[in-house]
This record gives sequence, C-alpha cells and structure tokens, in this order.
Amino acid sequence: MFLTADHEHMALALRLAQRGLYTATPNPRVGCVIVRDGKVVGEGWHERAGEAHAEVNALRMAGNLAQGATAYVTLEPCSHHGRTPPCADALIAAGIVRVVAAMQDPNPLVAGQGIEKLRAAGIATAAGLMEAEARELNIGFVSRMTRGRPWVRVKIAASIDGKTALNNGISQWITGPDARCDAHVWRARSCAMLTGIGTVREDNPRLTVRDIETTRQPLRIVVDSRLETPLSARILEGGNALIATASEDKARIAALGKLGVQVVVLPNAQGKVDLSALLTELGRRDINEVMVEAGPRLNGSLLREGCVDELLIYQAPVLLGDNARGMVNLPELTDLSGKCELTIIERRAIGPDLRLIARLKQA
Amino acid sequence: MFLTADHEHMALALRLAQRGLYTATPNPRVGCVIVRDGKVVGEGWHERAGEAHAEVNALRMAGNLAQGATAYVTLEPCSHHGRTPPCADALIAAGIVRVVAAMQDPNPLVAGQGIEKLRAAGIATAAGLMEAEARELNIGFVSRMTRGRPWVRVKIAASIDGKTALNNGISQWITGPDARCDAHVWRARSCAMLTGIGTVREDNPRLTVRDIETTRQPLRIVVDSRLETPLSARILEGGNALIATASEDKARIAALGKLGVQVVVLPNAQGKVDLSALLTELGRRDINEVMVEAGPRLNGSLLREGCVDELLIYQAPVLLGDNARGMVNLPELTDLSGKCELTIIERRAIGPDLRLIARLKQA
Repeated sequence: MFLTADHEHMALALRLAQRGLYTATPNPRVGCVIVRDGKVVGEGWHERAGEAHAEVNALRMAGNLAQGATAYVTLEPCSHHGRTPPCADALIAAGIVRVVAAMQDPNPLVAGQGIEKLRAAGIATAAGLMEAEARELNIGFVSRMTRGRPWVRVKIAASIDGKTALNNGISQWITGPDARCDAHVWRARSCAMLTGIGTVREDNPRLTVRDIETTRQPLRIVVDSRLETPLSARILEGGNALIATASEDKARIAALGKLGVQVVVLPNAQGKVDLSALLTELGRRDINEVMVEAGPRLNGSLLREGCVDELLIYQAPVLLGDNARGMVNLPELTDLSGKCELTIIERRAIGPDLRLIARLKQA
Repeated sequence: MFLTADHEHMALALRLAQRGLYTATPNPRVGCVIVRDGKVVGEGWHERAGEAHAEVNALRMAGNLAQGATAYVTLEPCSHHGRTPPCADALIAAGIVRVVAAMQDPNPLVAGQGIEKLRAAGIATAAGLMEAEARELNIGFVSRMTRGRPWVRVKIAASIDGKTALNNGISQWITGPDARCDAHVWRARSCAMLTGIGTVREDNPRLTVRDIETTRQPLRIVVDSRLETPLSARILEGGNALIATASEDKARIAALGKLGVQVVVLPNAQGKVDLSALLTELGRRDINEVMVEAGPRLNGSLLREGCVDELLIYQAPVLLGDNARGMVNLPELTDLSGKCELTIIERRAIGPDLRLIARLKQA
C-alpha cells in the first residue's frame, strides 16, 4: 500500500515534528512534507501553540508547487477552527491531491473528520504509515486525548542493587554527569515535573531544566497532603508551580498564591492527595507529559494507584548495600504472581550508566 | 609486528581453546594451530588434565607438515615435565620454526621459560597476540597462578529494583527460563559452586549443572560456620561437596565424611568462616573459578572481605518493592564515597532479562 518513497517522506515529516519536542505543548508535535514529482517542495513543523500548524508552514514553503502535490503529515490534519483555521481547508485550497497521515487524530470525538473533509474534496487519503513512531512522539498528547490524563514517566537514578539514596538521604550523585544531563533532556520535553513533600524537604530541588537550552520551563508540582512546602522552597521560586494537597488551610493557600503558586485541593478518603484525581486535573489543564522525580514513598503510591505509565531508570555501576534506600515502597508480596511486570522499551548506555525505559504491562 | 594472518590463526586457536571450557580444569584452556605456507595443517586443544596438551594434538594432526611451520598457541608452551612431557620439546622436535603465543605462562615462577627454551633452539618466538582474549578465557587459572586463589563470580538474579526474593524467601522464579539456562552454562565452566547455610536451609538447592550437557560437575561448597547443613541436604547428594566451617565438631565431621563430604575448618576471630583463607585453601585444591549463588548475607560478607572479583547479574523486568530482599548486605554508608564501584564488562539481553557482567574496580 505504501511505497519506499512514502516511508522516506514520512520519516522526514517525523524528524520535522521532533523539532517541536520541547515547545509544541499542549499541542502535539507535528511535521509535514509536501512532495511533487518525487521532490520535496515544502517542509513544515509546529513550533508553538497559537502559531502556524505544520501543514500551513509546509504549504507556505511550497507555494504554487503545492498544486498537484502529495502532503505527508504525522497527524491527521485538523478540520475545526481552533486558534488557527482548519489545515484540511488549507490543503484543499492549495491544490494538494493526496494526503498521507501517520495517524488519525487521537481524540475519539474528532478522529477521521479531517480525513473525511479531504476525501469529500476529492483528495486521495491514506492513514497509518509509521503510526507507531507517530504515536510515540506524541505519547502524552495521545494519553490526554484518549484517557483524559497525561502520560506519567517516573525517573529513578539508582545503583545496580536498586538503591536511590543512602539511609541518611544522600543521593548526589549516584549516576554520572552524562545521565544527569540526559535527564534534563527528558525534563525539557515534559509539560510538568512532579515530586513529593519528602523530596522537597530533603533535597530542596528546583526541578527546572538547566543542563540544556530551552525556551520553556515545565510546571512544577508538589504532592503535599498537609501543605507543608516551605514558602522558601526552591521549587516555588519564580512561581510556575502547583501544589496538590488535601489541606484546605486558607491562609497557607493565600500565602502560596502571593508567590504565584497554584493550589489544588484533592483529598482522598485517607486524607492524602487523590493521585488519580490529580492526573485528571492535570489533563484538564492541558498537561501531556508528566515526569516524576520523587522518593520511594510517592513512587510507590503512584504505582499502587495505577498512575505510572513508564519508568526511566538510570542505573549506575555501583553497589550501595541493603541499608540504603530503595526505588519504590510497595505492599509486601507473599507470592511472586503479585510482582509488578514491566516491558523494556529500550536499554542504552549513557556514559558509565545504563538507561532503561520500561512500561507497565497493564498500562 | 603481527600480520592479519597472525590474528586470524590466533583467533582460531582461541576458538579451539574454548572447547576445553567445561573440561580442562584444573589446567588452562589452551588451543594450538600449526600453519605452513599460509595453510592450517594442524589444530589441537586441551580437553582434560592428564591427556595430551593442545600443542601435541596439533602436531599429531600436522605430522610431517609441521616441518618449517609456525605454531600459534594461546598460552606459552610448557617447558617442564608434568603429567605429560614438555610441549616446548615437542615443538622443537617437530621442526617448528616460529612460535606465536597469546600470553606468557601466568605462573610468575615459570613465565618465559618455555619461550626461552624455544629461542635457545633457534626458533623465532613472539608473545602477546590477542593476549586480552587469552587472559579472559583462563581468568580463573590466571587468578590461581598469580594470586594463589580462584576467580570468584557472584551470580545474582534480581528485579530491576534490586530484589532477589520476597520477604518470605520465595525467589522462584524472578528471572525467565533463558536466564536460568544461561546460568547453568556458567555453572558448567566453574570448578566449584559456593553457597551459604542460609540458602541451603531456605532453598535446599542441588547446585549441579542440569540445563546443559556436561561431563563434569563442579565441587559444591557450603559456608556453614556451625556445621548445620542437614545430612539430607540436596547439595550433599552424591558427595563431591565440601563444607567450610568454624566448628570442630568431630562427630558431625565424621558423619559428613561417611557421605563423601569433605570438611575444612577455617575459623576467623569472630567464630565465622575466614572467607579469605577459604579462597586460599580452594586455590591449593586447584580450583580456578568459583561461582557463588548465595543470599545477601554471604554475598555481603564476601564483598566486605574482598573475596569477590565479578558479579553476574540477571535483571528481570519486574518491580518487587522495598519489602522484598536485597542483593547484598553491606555496612550502612554515610557518604557516597564509600560505594562499591564496578566496571561493566558486558550488558546483554537474555530473553526478557538483562545480563550484566561487572567487575570490582579494586579487584
């Protein structure tokens, strides 16, 4: 159904889409390639919400050459008026005769409508070319559209024996500088960073992107049932922070508000933060990808409550011994059938460390 | 100094040597290739102690073609009468004109003597071609010759969060069937298997080679300070077992002796087994490679006492949580500078699991 040339053009469109990795949020990362007579005449990608979509940028570059051309897009062109006019209309107006999309719009309420509009205008359409790659690129956007909540990636830096800190809390640095820099790349693509009050108290992290250049900092979120985050905590510096709590302490909420810190009150029956409700709230706030950098308690709570999609583990070639702190607090198992099973997506050496990407089997 | 053809012939000699992986002990694994006018005319390897050495087997195959030929050997030819006559003499008698050895004899007391004897007979000699590979192949033999003790490889099967068993002791099976079979390959090349009384009590393992074919079973060793190994323990079945203890209980030692089980009494000042002395004793008993399959207590003691050279870790893509049992008991660290640093030699996927080979930085 698809020719080698189709694959090559879509691969290029995916590389273009990748350029929006750090900036497109809350929109998906999308790339578009216009091809006439086997030659690429237009390339475009979506850089930032409110700015032109990938298709419009590619059509602009192609100009009149778009007449009779094929458009390769990594996501089904939109058919509705958002902050910009529908891309399907732009493709029709430009005289495109064939549109190949890597995947349908993941929003089940609008999926297929862009393709339908193109078809109705007499344009040949096809979808599903390199779909897996396209879905991976927008894993958070797809998650929000299909499940109403973000993709949650838990980052853990550990020793080979699974230890993340000494018993006294010291954890800097178990992994090497390459792994730490790599983790900042993952922070930069995230819409939000999430941690717990324990980590705020012990490590006082900023959770900003520092090791690489970026034009956008992720929202910082603290799970803090009793609103104990100190007003002087680094994570609150400059605002752009949100505290999820079970406390309704109005004075505290007002004090935080003065620092530009938002507070959401989402208690569960145990007086802790309802983590699942928090994810729904983050979805509502257009958060696609959340990166968790927390301690074993919050990691364990997220896992137990089905709130983890992916683990990003950096494993350093050291042993710390059984007295050091572990990765995740889980209820004691009496039977191995209760183990939490993962699918390894990738293993890669990062300097002297190993980077593992694993997904929950049930996720 | 060495030509491509030299490398190719030595690589072949190393592959031949590899055939003795399971059987040559306590001798080294050695291969030999005889080449005349660029053609391989003889191949040999050492299968079993007391039988012909690699050089003799290769010369036998070459016959008269050895006249004027080059011999490639993975280890310096012996110059002394052992259970067989010196190989240096055989090479001289056969009319070999050049000998290339991958490495010198690792025994510092005889190193270079074989080469010297050849040189004195007018034979051109060279050493050091593919030496690293040759040393790896005989890592245990080299250890025994240079340090008077075996190479100690600790096998651990664990979850990604470093857990080796549930809190109730259940550990079968964390890793998959491929990893378990692979571990039997490592057992088969070992001269001895070593475990602790805790593992004998909890898992009652046989520690024999079962998943692959072998003509030789490793000696099984239990570290058992108080001589508590039950006479019915599977590890004692069929004899070929040794107990290292701190107890001098004569009746118990006699009862074990009746089962064909040897006992060595090696107490340290704390009334435990002196592990370093045990390694020296094993070296004295011609043990080249020891594979440890024990629990976190013995693993930790071995590490603390500088008795571990290598870790063979199978890591399953599962999480068991902090309540499960860890890999190694080590004294609590208060500072990350005390961490036990490893060098990763290899990372390889074995079915769904990851196999890591790591060596101690100080080892």
